[in-house]
Amino acid sequence: MAKQKKAPRPKAQTPKGFRDYFGAEVTERAEMLRRIAGVYHRYGFDALESAAVETVEALGKFLPDVDRPNEGVFAWQDDDEGWLALRYDLTAPLARAYAQHRNELPLPYRRYAMGPVWRNEKPGPGRYRQFYQCDADTVGAASVAADAEICAMLADTLEEVGIPRGDYLIRVNNRKVLNGVLESMGVAEDHQRDAVLRTIDKFDKVGEAGVRELLGAGRLDASGAYIDGVGLGEAQAEPVLAFLTSKGADAGETIANLRAAVGESAVGAEGVDELEQIAALLTAQGYGPDRIVIDPSVVRGLGYYTGPVFEAELTFEILDEKGRKRQFGSVAGGGRYDDLVKRFTGQAVPATGISIGVDRLLAALREKGRIHSETRGPVVVTVMDRDRMADYQAMVAELRQEGIRAEVYLGNPKNFGNQLKYADKRGSPVAIIEGGEEKANGVVQIKDLILGAKLAESASLEEWKERPSQVEVPRGEMVAKVREMLDQCNSATALSNIPEEFWE
Amino acid sequence: MAKQKKAPRPKAQTPKGFRDYFGAEVTERAEMLRRIAGVYHRYGFDALESAAVETVEALGKFLPDVDRPNEGVFAWQDDDEGWLALRYDLTAPLARAYAQHRNELPLPYRRYAMGPVWRNEKPGPGRYRQFYQCDADTVGAASVAADAEICAMLADTLEEVGIPRGDYLIRVNNRKVLNGVLESMGVAEDHQRDAVLRTIDKFDKVGEAGVRELLGAGRLDASGAYIDGVGLGEAQAEPVLAFLTSKGADAGETIANLRAAVGESAVGAEGVDELEQIAALLTAQGYGPDRIVIDPSVVRGLGYYTGPVFEAELTFEILDEKGRKRQFGSVAGGGRYDDLVKRFTGQAVPATGISIGVDRLLAALREKGRIHSETRGPVVVTVMDRDRMADYQAMVAELRQEGIRAEVYLGNPKNFGNQLKYADKRGSPVAIIEGGEEKANGVVQIKDLILGAKLAESASLEEWKERPSQVEVPRGEMVAKVREMLDQCNSATALSNIPEEFWE
Repeated sequence: MAKQKKAPRPKAQTPKGFRDYFGAEVTERAEMLRRIAGVYHRYGFDALESAAVETVEALGKFLPDVDRPNEGVFAWQDDDEGWLALRYDLTAPLARAYAQHRNELPLPYRRYAMGPVWRNEKPGPGRYRQFYQCDADTVGAASVAADAEICAMLADTLEEVGIPRGDYLIRVNNRKVLNGVLESMGVAEDHQRDAVLRTIDKFDKVGEAGVRELLGAGRLDASGAYIDGVGLGEAQAEPVLAFLTSKGADAGETIANLRAAVGESAVGAEGVDELEQIAALLTAQGYGPDRIVIDPSVVRGLGYYTGPVFEAELTFEILDEKGRKRQFGSVAGGGRYDDLVKRFTGQAVPATGISIGVDRLLAALREKGRIHSETRGPVVVTVMDRDRMADYQAMVAELRQEGIRAEVYLGNPKNFGNQLKYADKRGSPVAIIEGGEEKANGVVQIKDLILGAKLAESASLEEWKERPSQVEVPRGEMVAKVREMLDQCNSATALSNIPEEFWE
Repeated sequence: MAKQKKAPRPKAQTPKGFRDYFGAEVTERAEMLRRIAGVYHRYGFDALESAAVETVEALGKFLPDVDRPNEGVFAWQDDDEGWLALRYDLTAPLARAYAQHRNELPLPYRRYAMGPVWRNEKPGPGRYRQFYQCDADTVGAASVAADAEICAMLADTLEEVGIPRGDYLIRVNNRKVLNGVLESMGVAEDHQRDAVLRTIDKFDKVGEAGVRELLGAGRLDASGAYIDGVGLGEAQAEPVLAFLTSKGADAGETIANLRAAVGESAVGAEGVDELEQIAALLTAQGYGPDRIVIDPSVVRGLGYYTGPVFEAELTFEILDEKGRKRQFGSVAGGGRYDDLVKRFTGQAVPATGISIGVDRLLAALREKGRIHSETRGPVVVTVMDRDRMADYQAMVAELRQEGIRAEVYLGNPKNFGNQLKYADKRGSPVAIIEGGEEKANGVVQIKDLILGAKLAESASLEEWKERPSQVEVPRGEMVAKVREMLDQCNSATALSNIPEEFWE
């Protein structure tokens, strides 16, 4: 390396809002993505991977967080290409890719995509500026059968990754119904319309009375801050409240209430019809209201939706950071965005899809103890004589050939205690020792490290006591003995619910 | 969506140097990464995934392409965090992550990482500004046993992904030997030193005579352009040439030649000793010169290497874009970089590792026909009566429950010919037809699309002729019949060498 100029030392720090993922955090996510891809594939969706970088003009500006720099996007000016940006979702790149390659792609085009996206947002606890999404979309299908299929597939996917029926609910609404309500209210201006939509999105948190205040003069929130209202009159706000409280005992009742709420609006009636068809298709396929429901309170923040919108939430309770019970909440969302491809081509191309927030879904599974990670480290072959490194390397090679994860200690071997401390830190099940005396006698020592730890934890466990914590075996029997000890560990400790072959 | 202002249409175009990957291109890469991770894991390496974004100061400036904007990096100024950049490799982020988390990590720390990296380079044919790397590194092991292990693991990895022994060669050199040669030449200044290194890197292309010219006054290249030389005298250039031509019939001879080339240089002698130890360790483990060789011509472009450097190349010939035979060339490289963590902590932390160029490796496997992708599309259930969409959805649900990839046609069903064209474009093996008459009779038509295509291709194939191209079966036997037809396809066509379970 060229000599470093005397520069100040760089900080060893991820930029704010970014983080590192270690070991099982990485492999568990990879396994979840693999399972999701399996369901998407079975439904006929094909993989598409676009680059992280797009032109700013291709991405468009659809993020709700408009107060942030570059409207929530990481962007920079390229010498050759003008303004470039990191993708903020996988939908905008799909619209660009479909428009670019439409002559070669089938129509309809079902595609799935998975990977990180970036948001230039204010980071907070558990809120990062890079996170994974896993999307499936159908481009070129105007029929609401496509929307129904997406919802059914989402239900199958959640169950496939370990969320049992009853622990999730997919809620379906339709932007056209909302638009119908706004039309019948006489709210025409964009900014007022957006303000009403944002208020509707708060219904879950503030309830009917809260929404009433926020649509009118405003409201004191829990922290004592005064939130300005939209400034509608009480009569004018009424259709919104009728709409929000339209959820009935079943889909039929909800749909009847919605039909009343949209009044004379044609677009509203169209939206209600679509919801009715979606509900009928899903019911016929056995996806009942225990899994998928029509729910008028779903809005979805992104600006590009034009028809049905979906949201999947986990319904079980967790404890929040202050120890209060709350529902886990949303892990996936999506909807129909018929105008996104048209931005490029000028021709209307209907499209609908879903995006799963993979990191939140993983967090939920961990929270519920539904992922039991394989945290077992490798077998560690200790170094008693550094001139015989080749012998130790041969041992790990033999172990690996039998599919056993193994490594030689590569630190300074002088202090043997450090080698065992290392094996402990690695979560190693077994350490191998072959000093000069063992070598001369043609044997190795095999130390059972899990047994040592278990004995320390609960010395009364009979099944552990029967096993000696260190055994001497002939060198030729080393691999068989290690295999036997590992199998004992497996049967005595909780097994991962993720297939063994993934971890080996 | 809020109404679009009348803005000019965005171009549906990836930025220059970026591209989209479709279908098998994505799944083949995922499968290759999974296999590589399996080998790394078996060797005791743990996963680490860092973010794509780092501070510019944490990444440092080690890319050879210094003439590009931001020295080859995509960078931008963040309002909160100063200058941020996309990682250009996975090694600089590892050094940052290790320095940041060193108190929690084991020592030595073996880690693997895989993902895209970004280079702000001039794009060219087959040369993209985003590409995948798959790295393994050992931090905190000063012993060359760590370097030898990396080389052995690289050989195992290449074989695991489908490069047979004999089709690859891992070449090992040592920067210290080079430094010793430069020392014994009296080349001290950084810029002259770098110029000599760049010249050495051209040895493969221009040969001994070419290097002699480039070290001296300069050289006319094949295109007729004059390349300026380093300006050394003939006697001064001699040690470089002795060094470059030091490769002997075996490792022993090469090492003896190198020992002569470094003369009295202490650092040179140290480098030769290290190569000797690496060769001995690898030989003892059975990694002979058919897989790993000492080769003085390996340089590696990155500025941070301090000791052993490695390069894996594929030795078989391919045809280049002009139809000329040439060796496929390098698919992986790495080496020891003992000062990279020190940048952050001030304390020396030895480290060594390898980076596999996954996209090039995939290209090589495709070139050699070693990947036979599953390009089979889903079973397509056609729509004869759009009011019975729920029936068709039920059919695909039944097929999927048996693990068969299946979908309903979701385009406009009016023109039946379009539905079959769609199935053809999707590569569907089978189409299902259930019109009103079939429904009334409780049957479905199953159309064998692969048979149709095969008959068109080679009508004499007896095994295909025996099968009728369309059969009518009772509705209840649909799934079993489709399964039977798919199994016939499988046995009659080339099977993928990638395990079926990955694709299903």
